[in-house]
Amino acid sequence: MLTVEQAVQAKAIELGKLSIRATTAAKAGHPTTALSLTHLVTELLYRVMRWDPAHPRAPGSDRLVLSEGHAVPIIYAACADLGVTITPHGQARPMTHDDLMALRDIESPVDGHPNPEVGFPFFDAATGSLGQGLSVAAGLAAAARLDGIDKTIYCIVGDGESREGQIWEAMDFIADHELTNVVAIFNCNTLAQSDYVSPAQDWVHLQHKAEAFGWTALETDGHDPAKIDHVLRNRTALAKGKPLCIVARTVKGWGVPDLGGMGHHGTAVKQEQLEAVLATLDRLGREFGVEGADPEDIEKLLQITPPPETPPLQVNVSTPASLSAVAHENATIASALRDKKMMSPRRAYGTALKMLGAANPHIVALDADVKNSTYAQDFAAAFPDRYFEARIAEQNMVSAAAGLASGGKIPFVSTFGRFLERAFDQIEMAIIGGANLKLVGTHIGVTLASDGPSQMGLADVAFMRAFAHVRDSHGNPAMTILTPSDGVSAYGLVLAMAETSGACYLRAVRSDLPVLYPEGENFPLGAHKIVRRAQHEGAGCRLVFVASGYLVHSCLKAAKILEDDGVDAAVVDAYSLPANVPAILALAGDKGCIIAVEDNYVGGLSSELAETAATIKAAPAIYSLTVERIPKSGRSADDVLHYVGIGVDDIVETARHRIQPAV
Amino acid sequence: MLTVEQAVQAKAIELGKLSIRATTAAKAGHPTTALSLTHLVTELLYRVMRWDPAHPRAPGSDRLVLSEGHAVPIIYAACADLGVTITPHGQARPMTHDDLMALRDIESPVDGHPNPEVGFPFFDAATGSLGQGLSVAAGLAAAARLDGIDKTIYCIVGDGESREGQIWEAMDFIADHELTNVVAIFNCNTLAQSDYVSPAQDWVHLQHKAEAFGWTALETDGHDPAKIDHVLRNRTALAKGKPLCIVARTVKGWGVPDLGGMGHHGTAVKQEQLEAVLATLDRLGREFGVEGADPEDIEKLLQITPPPETPPLQVNVSTPASLSAVAHENATIASALRDKKMMSPRRAYGTALKMLGAANPHIVALDADVKNSTYAQDFAAAFPDRYFEARIAEQNMVSAAAGLASGGKIPFVSTFGRFLERAFDQIEMAIIGGANLKLVGTHIGVTLASDGPSQMGLADVAFMRAFAHVRDSHGNPAMTILTPSDGVSAYGLVLAMAETSGACYLRAVRSDLPVLYPEGENFPLGAHKIVRRAQHEGAGCRLVFVASGYLVHSCLKAAKILEDDGVDAAVVDAYSLPANVPAILALAGDKGCIIAVEDNYVGGLSSELAETAATIKAAPAIYSLTVERIPKSGRSADDVLHYVGIGVDDIVETARHRIQPAV
Repeated sequence: MLTVEQAVQAKAIELGKLSIRATTAAKAGHPTTALSLTHLVTELLYRVMRWDPAHPRAPGSDRLVLSEGHAVPIIYAACADLGVTITPHGQARPMTHDDLMALRDIESPVDGHPNPEVGFPFFDAATGSLGQGLSVAAGLAAAARLDGIDKTIYCIVGDGESREGQIWEAMDFIADHELTNVVAIFNCNTLAQSDYVSPAQDWVHLQHKAEAFGWTALETDGHDPAKIDHVLRNRTALAKGKPLCIVARTVKGWGVPDLGGMGHHGTAVKQEQLEAVLATLDRLGREFGVEGADPEDIEKLLQITPPPETPPLQVNVSTPASLSAVAHENATIASALRDKKMMSPRRAYGTALKMLGAANPHIVALDADVKNSTYAQDFAAAFPDRYFEARIAEQNMVSAAAGLASGGKIPFVSTFGRFLERAFDQIEMAIIGGANLKLVGTHIGVTLASDGPSQMGLADVAFMRAFAHVRDSHGNPAMTILTPSDGVSAYGLVLAMAETSGACYLRAVRSDLPVLYPEGENFPLGAHKIVRRAQHEGAGCRLVFVASGYLVHSCLKAAKILEDDGVDAAVVDAYSLPANVPAILALAGDKGCIIAVEDNYVGGLSSELAETAATIKAAPAIYSLTVERIPKSGRSADDVLHYVGIGVDDIVETARHRIQPAV
Repeated sequence: MLTVEQAVQAKAIELGKLSIRATTAAKAGHPTTALSLTHLVTELLYRVMRWDPAHPRAPGSDRLVLSEGHAVPIIYAACADLGVTITPHGQARPMTHDDLMALRDIESPVDGHPNPEVGFPFFDAATGSLGQGLSVAAGLAAAARLDGIDKTIYCIVGDGESREGQIWEAMDFIADHELTNVVAIFNCNTLAQSDYVSPAQDWVHLQHKAEAFGWTALETDGHDPAKIDHVLRNRTALAKGKPLCIVARTVKGWGVPDLGGMGHHGTAVKQEQLEAVLATLDRLGREFGVEGADPEDIEKLLQITPPPETPPLQVNVSTPASLSAVAHENATIASALRDKKMMSPRRAYGTALKMLGAANPHIVALDADVKNSTYAQDFAAAFPDRYFEARIAEQNMVSAAAGLASGGKIPFVSTFGRFLERAFDQIEMAIIGGANLKLVGTHIGVTLASDGPSQMGLADVAFMRAFAHVRDSHGNPAMTILTPSDGVSAYGLVLAMAETSGACYLRAVRSDLPVLYPEGENFPLGAHKIVRRAQHEGAGCRLVFVASGYLVHSCLKAAKILEDDGVDAAVVDAYSLPANVPAILALAGDKGCIIAVEDNYVGGLSSELAETAATIKAAPAIYSLTVERIPKSGRSADDVLHYVGIGVDDIVETARHRIQPAV
């Protein structure tokens, strides 16, 4: 009879061979990294984790986040062996060996890197851009704790990827929030892609680093089943109240000397060498005394513990109150709305978020040390358990939010719009993984003025709009961009984004803005508002200003000035991207003229309008004013608007110049 | 007579008062952070650093990088006091107290955060988006070492910003490359914006973290001139051969108890409280026995040591050889060009970079563990001293490159285009600071196929193009995007980007592509090539495909297929953004039709064409094919191109559908 260690060895060899076979079939992939994890993954998936292959997303299940996504063939091998549920084209069924051999095929859910959205629900998030998985694990752990579920989130991190700063942001975050239900496993196989890892990334230094970041760090032999099992099973006692980090010494290309050393990173074994390589692993099986072991014996020894039943999650969503209802209880809001008739969109964001928090227990919030600027502090004060201070570390914040979303929460993530740029990679990974992410960027645009260009969100729209015309796996826009022009619309849009499933980005200027809309106005995504109608509208109006946010007010001022010239201009608040472009173009008519004004670099509203207009022969002309010069500090918004060429005067001049031929 | 410590105290109080006055005048800024640095900055700028206020950029000068950019008023105060050279509107003159009081004015070079480009050459790079300065310092240090200059780069990092992962990437990079000419000073004032810093960021933990990252970390009292002076002057002996990190315990709002604690982060002292606050500092001066001290006595004690003379830098630039000349010496290149007639643009990049390296000693290269994929390895092998392996840490890589650029080098920075996204914030800061940065992103677009969306650069064009229509301080495009369609154009464009002053981004697919161009062809920035001419070109041709990179070849295939339908289509290789759009539109004529095809999300070439076309009544219609679905892995480029709707068939179908009405 086999020992349990022998059973693990036999399974590890089997999974290693499957990983090699699959990557050879795909003619691509990373079999050597997979081999370095074969014992760790076998121990986790077959012995230590409490889970159910038929229900990989069961709420009570322990989770495994593979931060070094390119090692994924070893996970696929295990999932094929265990018949883990996959959902190709939306149809759930157990994974087979044929599925494994279809690795990286266009029809297959077995993608090049982990991605739940292609039909592989075992994964909680897309990984593959390195250094992000530990943050995702932190988010999953935080969600589990909020739900009162006792489960462990394991995260495998490569020693190569430990160089990414985000790993250390996550180490800090997990220690800060005492997320001791995370176990980080550093796979120290000493080899990155192009070279050996730096001495700064060897297992000794990683252990020191982890300890300096407030973790308990234990070293183990990543190919010794007994040692791995010991440290994983005794993790709570060994961790001594801190988060636990396991520094596992492993061998890249384990078991196949010919695949060791440099030059075997992202290379599949060639078909003609396949049998020889597999035979090497078989010989190893002979050494371990497991060659030809009865699969039933192995199965008996490797029993997976099912997850505990979890109580049904509390869902108690009621419609949030409107801003005017809030005003009854909040003197500042009431005064802003009724007396001053001025309110900052970010102020409305804080209020709306707090209202949402009261209505829906799954709303959570994260902020990066600017909660007093974004007004996330309103939520933080009301719901401290559901607020996660991420400190000045935006990358970890966004990936942790993706983890929280995967754990069933609706995360609102706020910082200056400019600083969300720090996490664009993480935002794209969250989008790929289908995360229900609500991003809020405040202090956007040049009207921030005094702080200068390092603090102004100006390239945010171009980046986010790249995803606005990409369909996610449900056929919806992968990103919706919302720019409110007053407190009422900000409040309404925050509620709307909470109700939408999918990624949204709300952009809010710092300034107070005049209240434009009546209380209770509805702001559907994908629509716009006509805030000033021109009198000759019936036949298609001649001049239409299109803007969002602060610049809606600038355009209203410009329209008023032009009125004295006898020019009647409509003004559209295009608060949503993607926009209903045909409807906006129709306002100007085929002989009309649209002037789109943007408080950002090119790639936003003007492009949105022009791309559609350029396909239509009878479209209005579209002129755009965007920020075409790197701004600098100024003491007033007007100073900087003028400096970059989008002041009210610039808008009026453009209109006069452009409509002249038509007069 | 005063002691030197008293002189420092007197100067520190004077600079503190000036910082408060300036921020009060601007009604904005961060006087309390400035006060926490008043002794450290006084010691550095008046005693320790070897530099010349009249020539702040003298090559031999020690440098100060203020990573926590919002603390800048204390630097401005010192610069006003010392009459440091500033260059408002390009005119050099000494800074005055009036300049200081114009802080954040639209006409002033004294911006809200450090920025050399507005006329403040004391700074080497723009800072203010946190966590980037230590990487810039690393780049400056590396440049100094290459030039054989013995100078020290000091970098002040906030304890709040120490949470940014990039700080730890920089710590690793500096230790790896033994850049012991960097001294990092952590300003531990215990307060971030919205809260006290986490215990993980206190001075004890920062010291442990720095030591775990291979640095010598020394604690000091950041308000004790003698202690600061001791550690800075004895830095080499104290560092013991490692990079030195000074953990300075400081007080936010030093000297003014009313400005201590929370709630005083980004808030200027109100005008009506100004005199009372300044009086508090005066009373402190009395305690130190320096009230009313003779400025001449202080000046005598605080003598700045001028920088050493440096030998003139070697400049020995000769025109690099053409690719065919390279082919004479390199059998692989020769075979690729002449026999296979196939070459990957990234292969040509590696070759061109190596040629440039031979021609110009100021060319340096950085790569993030993929040098064997990007072919930066060709340069690394030939010029190991000028190659900086940045490991898997893209943010530090880009900011370090900005530092190298500021140090007079021409840095080429390569990784997968997808992973440059990790550093978009850093790229924007480099652009703001005017860095001469050459970015190279390989493996871009869906034709990467097998590895899946986590590895494909698809939103890169939209982001980079946001800057392509922004003028930098010299009136040039702040970014030029170049997408070669074969090895010859890749080679030519790498040479062209080296010759251009300013930020460029070269995008290279992974695949080998057929050679399209004859040897020696010229590729000016801002231009395009007509790679297939249509016969009815004289009167404006009916159908024009516009693409770049891989898709130029797809369009040529589509044109060939359409030829059999009797449809004659031109094909344009629009390898450069910004593009010469009017010339491209003219090819189609006002009755023509342009089909733009892009291997990226919306926001690139189609938008570029449409934005101009929408302003012209008699423009051709522009239809676009972009990636409108999140891709997945596929085993061939064709599989994934088809999956996202931009295969050759899709192009042909679109053409047939669109030109139908015109037939």
